[in-house]
Amino acid sequence: MKIPSRIAVENAFNRVQPYVHNTPVFTSRLLNELSGAQLFFKCENFQKMGAFKMRGAINAIQQLTPSQKKAGVVTHSSGNFAQALSLAAKSLGITAYIVMPSNAPQVKKDAVIAYGGKITESLSTIKAREAKAAEIEAETGAVFIHPSNNIDVILGQGTAAIELLNLHPDLDLLSAPVGGGGLIAGTALAAKYYGTACEVIGGEPFEADDAYRSLQTGKIAYNTTTNTVADGLRTHLGNYNFPIIKELVSEIIRVEEQEIIAAMRLIWERLKIIVEPSCAVPLAAILREPEKFKNKKVGIILSGGNVDLSNLPF
Amino acid sequence: MKIPSRIAVENAFNRVQPYVHNTPVFTSRLLNELSGAQLFFKCENFQKMGAFKMRGAINAIQQLTPSQKKAGVVTHSSGNFAQALSLAAKSLGITAYIVMPSNAPQVKKDAVIAYGGKITESLSTIKAREAKAAEIEAETGAVFIHPSNNIDVILGQGTAAIELLNLHPDLDLLSAPVGGGGLIAGTALAAKYYGTACEVIGGEPFEADDAYRSLQTGKIAYNTTTNTVADGLRTHLGNYNFPIIKELVSEIIRVEEQEIIAAMRLIWERLKIIVEPSCAVPLAAILREPEKFKNKKVGIILSGGNVDLSNLPF
Repeated sequence: MKIPSRIAVENAFNRVQPYVHNTPVFTSRLLNELSGAQLFFKCENFQKMGAFKMRGAINAIQQLTPSQKKAGVVTHSSGNFAQALSLAAKSLGITAYIVMPSNAPQVKKDAVIAYGGKITESLSTIKAREAKAAEIEAETGAVFIHPSNNIDVILGQGTAAIELLNLHPDLDLLSAPVGGGGLIAGTALAAKYYGTACEVIGGEPFEADDAYRSLQTGKIAYNTTTNTVADGLRTHLGNYNFPIIKELVSEIIRVEEQEIIAAMRLIWERLKIIVEPSCAVPLAAILREPEKFKNKKVGIILSGGNVDLSNLPF
Repeated sequence: MKIPSRIAVENAFNRVQPYVHNTPVFTSRLLNELSGAQLFFKCENFQKMGAFKMRGAINAIQQLTPSQKKAGVVTHSSGNFAQALSLAAKSLGITAYIVMPSNAPQVKKDAVIAYGGKITESLSTIKAREAKAAEIEAETGAVFIHPSNNIDVILGQGTAAIELLNLHPDLDLLSAPVGGGGLIAGTALAAKYYGTACEVIGGEPFEADDAYRSLQTGKIAYNTTTNTVADGLRTHLGNYNFPIIKELVSEIIRVEEQEIIAAMRLIWERLKIIVEPSCAVPLAAILREPEKFKNKKVGIILSGGNVDLSNLPF
């Protein structure tokens, strides 16, 4: 696969911008002292529907043909992408079909409904969800949009880092959590075209370190366990994002569960903002291996803020 | 007592501005829908040391004479004002003596020490704390700064509302929580001089409704119980702020504990920010008596974000 061009990245940025918040960038003197680096937190927890995923969904939908738009889009997700695709479709006046496992929490179903998504329930296995989505595709002609392994989604997710680099073009490093690979791949494209020798380092839980192992072996690896508090990072890479990650991401640092929870708590206490556990993984990585970041200007994509307050890890 | 003049309010604003953050103003479509009003949240949880109290401390210290500055300042507080006075004193290069009850949580003592405050411990009764502060005054010549009943502190606290009104001069209403009375008095002065017919309504827990009763009777009332989750609002009004409140605050709305907790949760979930329970009292008041706020533009001072994450009410 060819790495997307500068023009493709720029076009995605221009397409996405009118539909998303240019989220603020927060800093903390204390977190700088603690890490030995100068940290710039891009607050995608303040993004529409509470996560960066809105960006990829908006970009992907806009790339559809008029007749595809008329038929709508479909995805299977029980997480942020279900909400993102629903809201993005609503913003652009099209229909979103969302396959969710019947045992998904009611609060997540309600959020999708509130954003106008049409839910179809399925069994919770990935096979059952894929089959149900294929069924909807066949019936309605809706276009399947994968949450992370879709080039337009990847380009959309990268626009958060572009906004950050527009403010701070001299970042030495960018860091993002690695789940399905859409965010880190998009971030790496942003660094390549908008940065000045800006390196990209991913963060991943030891408990779901498929991307780390994929980079080690050069082949997409899969998780055998996903027992991590960072529930957004349990998925694996795909054939569209892995080649980008392999070429443009210099390293993935793995972190322990306790390090994720401690970093999450630091962000909550010091930045006074609500972020998901997944968001805390890059800061945990920086605090685990500070020598790699010492005296550097480091951008961190805080990916989202949709947390169940009744079920906090501290 | 005469109500402070426009010039006094303006001068305080100019004095305070260089030493504090002009904190952002957040909005939420969903919270607007829920309340029927247009809400503008002034995020003092992002203020230096995590609360608006920095403003009053900065203003009060700057009003001291050079010889007073040399001797330093003293207060007794186990909460945000202890940290505020410590950091404000540090910013201005003077000494802050902080009397804290010996049973105050270590984390609060650590915060004061981190900001350079000199802690003297005392018994936890208000008498013992006052006596210890008087002792330090006598020994060191340090000037006692009251956390809320000090005219320069009041003028400083009002600068948050001035920043908000500079952005939104057409607010119909301003609302703030009522504890010791410094914030609501300062906010009322800001509304008087910077607003356009901007009414001020306070919020207070039923469990600590001294200010409500003070306004009813025209005399400063005291709490008999302070069994509220809004731990910043357990104090009572004083002879400097009560005349301002009596003249300029049109009403104080009381709210139940469960309403405070629900409003706090809404702010956390919808704005994705960490705020103290006290902050949630104005929103709880708006949701309790929505007819008073319907279709109005309402500014809310979110007072602070120093929360013990290990001890959340939900």
